[in-house]
Amino acid sequence: MSGVWGSKVRLSIFGESHGKAIGINIDGLKPGIELDLNYINKEMRRRAPGGSELSTPRKEEDNFEILSGYFNGRTTGTPLCAIIYNKNQHSKDYEKTKNLMRPSHGDLTGHVKYQGFNDYRGGGHFSGRITAPLVFAGAICKQILEKKGIFIGSHIKSISKIEDVSFNMTEIESEILKGLNESKFPVLTEEIGINMKNSIIKAKEEMDSLGGVIETAVNNLPVGLGEPFFDSVESILSHLLFSIPGVKGVEFGEGFNISKLKGSEANDGFYIENEKIKTYSNNNGGILGGITNGMPLIFRTAVKPTPSIAKIQNTVDIQKRENAKIEIKGRHDPCIIPRALPVVEAAAAIAIIQFID
Amino acid sequence: MSGVWGSKVRLSIFGESHGKAIGINIDGLKPGIELDLNYINKEMRRRAPGGSELSTPRKEEDNFEILSGYFNGRTTGTPLCAIIYNKNQHSKDYEKTKNLMRPSHGDLTGHVKYQGFNDYRGGGHFSGRITAPLVFAGAICKQILEKKGIFIGSHIKSISKIEDVSFNMTEIESEILKGLNESKFPVLTEEIGINMKNSIIKAKEEMDSLGGVIETAVNNLPVGLGEPFFDSVESILSHLLFSIPGVKGVEFGEGFNISKLKGSEANDGFYIENEKIKTYSNNNGGILGGITNGMPLIFRTAVKPTPSIAKIQNTVDIQKRENAKIEIKGRHDPCIIPRALPVVEAAAAIAIIQFID
Amino acid sequence: MSGVWGSKVRLSIFGESHGKAIGINIDGLKPGIELDLNYINKEMRRRAPGGSELSTPRKEEDNFEILSGYFNGRTTGTPLCAIIYNKNQHSKDYEKTKNLMRPSHGDLTGHVKYQGFNDYRGGGHFSGRITAPLVFAGAICKQILEKKGIFIGSHIKSISKIEDVSFNMTEIESEILKGLNESKFPVLTEEIGINMKNSIIKAKEEMDSLGGVIETAVNNLPVGLGEPFFDSVESILSHLLFSIPGVKGVEFGEGFNISKLKGSEANDGFYIENEKIKTYSNNNGGILGGITNGMPLIFRTAVKPTPSIAKIQNTVDIQKRENAKIEIKGRHDPCIIPRALPVVEAAAAIAIIQFID
Amino acid sequence: MSGVWGSKVRLSIFGESHGKAIGINIDGLKPGIELDLNYINKEMRRRAPGGSELSTPRKEEDNFEILSGYFNGRTTGTPLCAIIYNKNQHSKDYEKTKNLMRPSHGDLTGHVKYQGFNDYRGGGHFSGRITAPLVFAGAICKQILEKKGIFIGSHIKSISKIEDVSFNMTEIESEILKGLNESKFPVLTEEIGINMKNSIIKAKEEMDSLGGVIETAVNNLPVGLGEPFFDSVESILSHLLFSIPGVKGVEFGEGFNISKLKGSEANDGFYIENEKIKTYSNNNGGILGGITNGMPLIFRTAVKPTPSIAKIQNTVDIQKRENAKIEIKGRHDPCIIPRALPVVEAAAAIAIIQFID
Repeated sequence: MSGVWGSKVRLSIFGESHGKAIGINIDGLKPGIELDLNYINKEMRRRAPGGSELSTPRKEEDNFEILSGYFNGRTTGTPLCAIIYNKNQHSKDYEKTKNLMRPSHGDLTGHVKYQGFNDYRGGGHFSGRITAPLVFAGAICKQILEKKGIFIGSHIKSISKIEDVSFNMTEIESEILKGLNESKFPVLTEEIGINMKNSIIKAKEEMDSLGGVIETAVNNLPVGLGEPFFDSVESILSHLLFSIPGVKGVEFGEGFNISKLKGSEANDGFYIENEKIKTYSNNNGGILGGITNGMPLIFRTAVKPTPSIAKIQNTVDIQKRENAKIEIKGRHDPCIIPRALPVVEAAAAIAIIQFID
Repeated sequence: MSGVWGSKVRLSIFGESHGKAIGINIDGLKPGIELDLNYINKEMRRRAPGGSELSTPRKEEDNFEILSGYFNGRTTGTPLCAIIYNKNQHSKDYEKTKNLMRPSHGDLTGHVKYQGFNDYRGGGHFSGRITAPLVFAGAICKQILEKKGIFIGSHIKSISKIEDVSFNMTEIESEILKGLNESKFPVLTEEIGINMKNSIIKAKEEMDSLGGVIETAVNNLPVGLGEPFFDSVESILSHLLFSIPGVKGVEFGEGFNISKLKGSEANDGFYIENEKIKTYSNNNGGILGGITNGMPLIFRTAVKPTPSIAKIQNTVDIQKRENAKIEIKGRHDPCIIPRALPVVEAAAAIAIIQFID
Repeated sequence: MSGVWGSKVRLSIFGESHGKAIGINIDGLKPGIELDLNYINKEMRRRAPGGSELSTPRKEEDNFEILSGYFNGRTTGTPLCAIIYNKNQHSKDYEKTKNLMRPSHGDLTGHVKYQGFNDYRGGGHFSGRITAPLVFAGAICKQILEKKGIFIGSHIKSISKIEDVSFNMTEIESEILKGLNESKFPVLTEEIGINMKNSIIKAKEEMDSLGGVIETAVNNLPVGLGEPFFDSVESILSHLLFSIPGVKGVEFGEGFNISKLKGSEANDGFYIENEKIKTYSNNNGGILGGITNGMPLIFRTAVKPTPSIAKIQNTVDIQKRENAKIEIKGRHDPCIIPRALPVVEAAAAIAIIQFID
Repeated sequence: MSGVWGSKVRLSIFGESHGKAIGINIDGLKPGIELDLNYINKEMRRRAPGGSELSTPRKEEDNFEILSGYFNGRTTGTPLCAIIYNKNQHSKDYEKTKNLMRPSHGDLTGHVKYQGFNDYRGGGHFSGRITAPLVFAGAICKQILEKKGIFIGSHIKSISKIEDVSFNMTEIESEILKGLNESKFPVLTEEIGINMKNSIIKAKEEMDSLGGVIETAVNNLPVGLGEPFFDSVESILSHLLFSIPGVKGVEFGEGFNISKLKGSEANDGFYIENEKIKTYSNNNGGILGGITNGMPLIFRTAVKPTPSIAKIQNTVDIQKRENAKIEIKGRHDPCIIPRALPVVEAAAAIAIIQFID
């Protein structure tokens, strides 16, 4: 199935970007949790388009409506369902080109899988818009974790070939992570951030798009979360991350680079300090044997450049079964990386909640 | 839970490397499938140590015993359980150091998670040995797929900093993939393979270890496998890949590199040829919107260098709660990459079987 | 978890009877199925109160709204979510008595389980109203099955001590089942039906309530549905049936009576007729070894008398922790059996869909 | 799937009665639990045939072998797999009649479902023998519950038409339940037990068989276990009970009889005593809204008479596709009820463990 996921907290997602509404049902939240709706709104706004000159002018208000599982300001413990009605949809943008398969999108594969019955408008159920309910659920999980002193934050590690520095792998202050959550374009080095923004504006002018890498950290995780085999922290987290449209790579700690190191360089030696066991380095990204070891959990998510570009592209007409050209009109993002950060963090929060009591 | 995974075909894995036996229960195989036990044995031998001078001299015979679900040479359709009794285990190797947490292993995390009750000998349930039952299950799935014309094969993409070329992303012959399955050290460029082997021998002499990257391809997949959201092909496959001990990164198609391309460079334009829809390039690695598009499925798995090295390392004594040193004796692999290939292919086969009718 | 269920077709239910809305997300329906919304409405009306003088005058309109997974009159194959907004709720009816635990309701257990944070109004998530989304999902599954020639129908087997005859166990015409679906008070013997109705009216006058047993049949099932062990047809079906509020017993075929027969009396001997294998008797209710054998699937569901009666009852005040009395005002059903039939059939349809290709 | 079940503690069952071995993998047990192997053996012996003159002389030793998840006398917290090798199997008993479908067995349905590839000998995966691993798992769960003061015990409520009295529904001493576990033929009224035994011996002489009903009680359950909708205690428990071969009915509390009572008679009024909330009556069997209320959990399981009788029966030859007669030779039980008690209790223990922390 596609729409259901989770063990301790189960998510059931639904919606097409041009259908009536998108939403998510969250089952397994503990009763009595006070929800900060402003916090949720803030996370939703980080994801929503129309927030800056770097993204599409297309506005999505993403006002959610909680239908159940929430009473007198607290979770009831019963399933909590939230929906977002779709407005401001320009469905006609898609009517003329519905038989032209947009390259690098899910048009063709969705058409074959659903035998032509899928809602193709705006990407339907494949649309990045369906990440909005995911961010909603993630915002609830993030709050729960923050109350336990666990913070999740990300910065843009790279836009195209422009790279920022990395987190300090062995220690990350909660204040830093919270600060990154507040930023519209979070980077660790300001000048590099300016270069990144300029390259995005340039790509927009060239009717092209850029991709990037997001680096995320979670601090203060207790030791012992995760399972040695099929439900390791990496497994659960990557399962969710790769559900996000556009993600093509996930790595933990030193990631692909760790394969270039020798064992003597890669191994994280242990030491004890103030009764707490730590490691001198953290090439393993806070996870050993699939289980958290108390060091910061660090991972990187690679997102491909936005497929919807205005340049003319080669495609096929699925009805006529012949080669064709496509020119994607409409209002699209030159770079979705800033908007993808809260989605990646939502995935992290939802994954970790599966393991926390 | 840790040991149970799957939807259409469910796996339930068990075993500690120094316990009585390790094994796997496979539930959901169709009835009447003729199993080639030699094929399974061959895959198991690819994984087993003691096969070459590059790996540990420690021998594991890995003779499996099928207990159920197999009658008159064919699957019955009922759960098929196979076990491998543990022999040739030098349990005393671990007795003296049981309180010393080996760096980059699951010792510490397993100790905390299981409150000290886990079987610590040889890594227990965290041992790479537990991949043997996974290869068994994968060998069954690979056979089933091959009968449908779907082939899975891998080559060593890199050992440490030494890199081989990549697969031709748009077309891969089944013969090439089958040939790679037969090789003990599969590479695409012979001289590079020789360099790689030399570096492994050198690391062994230095009492150190090396990691690497495995590149895997699956050809002839039908269009339409996978689900748009939570059970995309990337999600299901990475979930299994990150269950393999030592894996720290997974990428599809161009992977992390795709984030450096512009949309116009990254997008895979469509064309039709002989009634079949293909793409000019395959930066997406055969998956669009989480669903196969008929182009080769290509992915890369990064494996960290073997944590068990003979050099003295910094650690802690978990009982005395103080810093200590550890010198890991015993017979360990300087590089497990060649042995990890069949495990990665097993993960791929098991993942794809979830989607195939 | 409570709200998620299913394997091939997954349901995710949510809602409190006095919350904003109740609903269900259905994941796994095949694409391209034409949905008859009138059929669904008809099933919903069978369940809704206010339909006859036998039930409560309280009206629930149960107008559903499909939010996703439905496009141009057909299922898309992506998750289909339907909601029903709650109106006509007299929430004040419950405010005064919120600390008085209604006997035989889920008030006390819900209060303890959810630590007092549950929405107690009208039973909250325990309310029989939450069966409305279940009937919605069941109506979709019933349509799908009917297109395959499989029909589901029920009659009231008993109200209190008044018993109707049973189905002909070895053969049931689809016309009979369809006819029962159309009736407001479906019985096999008209006079007995009249007696039953009179007893319900009498109970209503006495401010009391009655229970009953529903007998359901499914015909034309193919042979081979179900699994021998954990997911037998009886297991899957009873799992759903016992989810329905008020159900306290489920039996298949001869049910509890079969335990009174000798083997020679109980066994259903086989014979072959027109290439089809049948049984002379059908004491097993169409299921052998957990798997359908092609004979009619027959089962019975026992529903307890409606707990909400107007008579004064003994209870406790959960806040004062002392004995108390409770007088349940409001508009309640003297007998919910006629309204429970479509819910039981929904359960049957949803269960069978798990096994059908 | 058939062989995998559970949420908190997952079971994966395998085996055919004439295959190499049967067994079960249990995933999710907490680490550090001291297992009493004698206790497990005792439960296994209650189930095994050959234990008395009432059952078949066929001996099954059921010596189990724990392969993993158990170290130094305690659970490790990793998956615990136990197998039982099949010996003393008279496979030739089945060879001649393999095309004759035994009435009321899973022969026909298994043949169709598995397209003739199933292991038909001795019922294969449909054999009652597969309940042995279930009893093993149940014995572990029973021990865990007993350490928490929760006891499970059953008595034979009826054999054919001979009925014993019922449990005291509002209070059941642990000593009584433990005493019933020790008895080979547990009844509440001794003389009735003698009548029952005589009727079984008579049936054996007549080459016939008898069925019966088992009444089970669980005491000292905390309040709040279970879920309001899909995973109510009744749902989870009946799911497992109906997996047991031969079960055709399950009821809770007053069960089917509750449907004959008026609401004023059926409702269990609350009162408080020594800070504990109780009910005057317990017609609901300890479950309200799908959740335990602290009163004894009482349920009844109806088991059909053993299908294997020596009398000549009508059947079909599945290969010749024509009517035939079958005479089942071999050594079969005239009544499996005494042997089914530990299986029913195992189901109860495994079900409750899903909810207990």
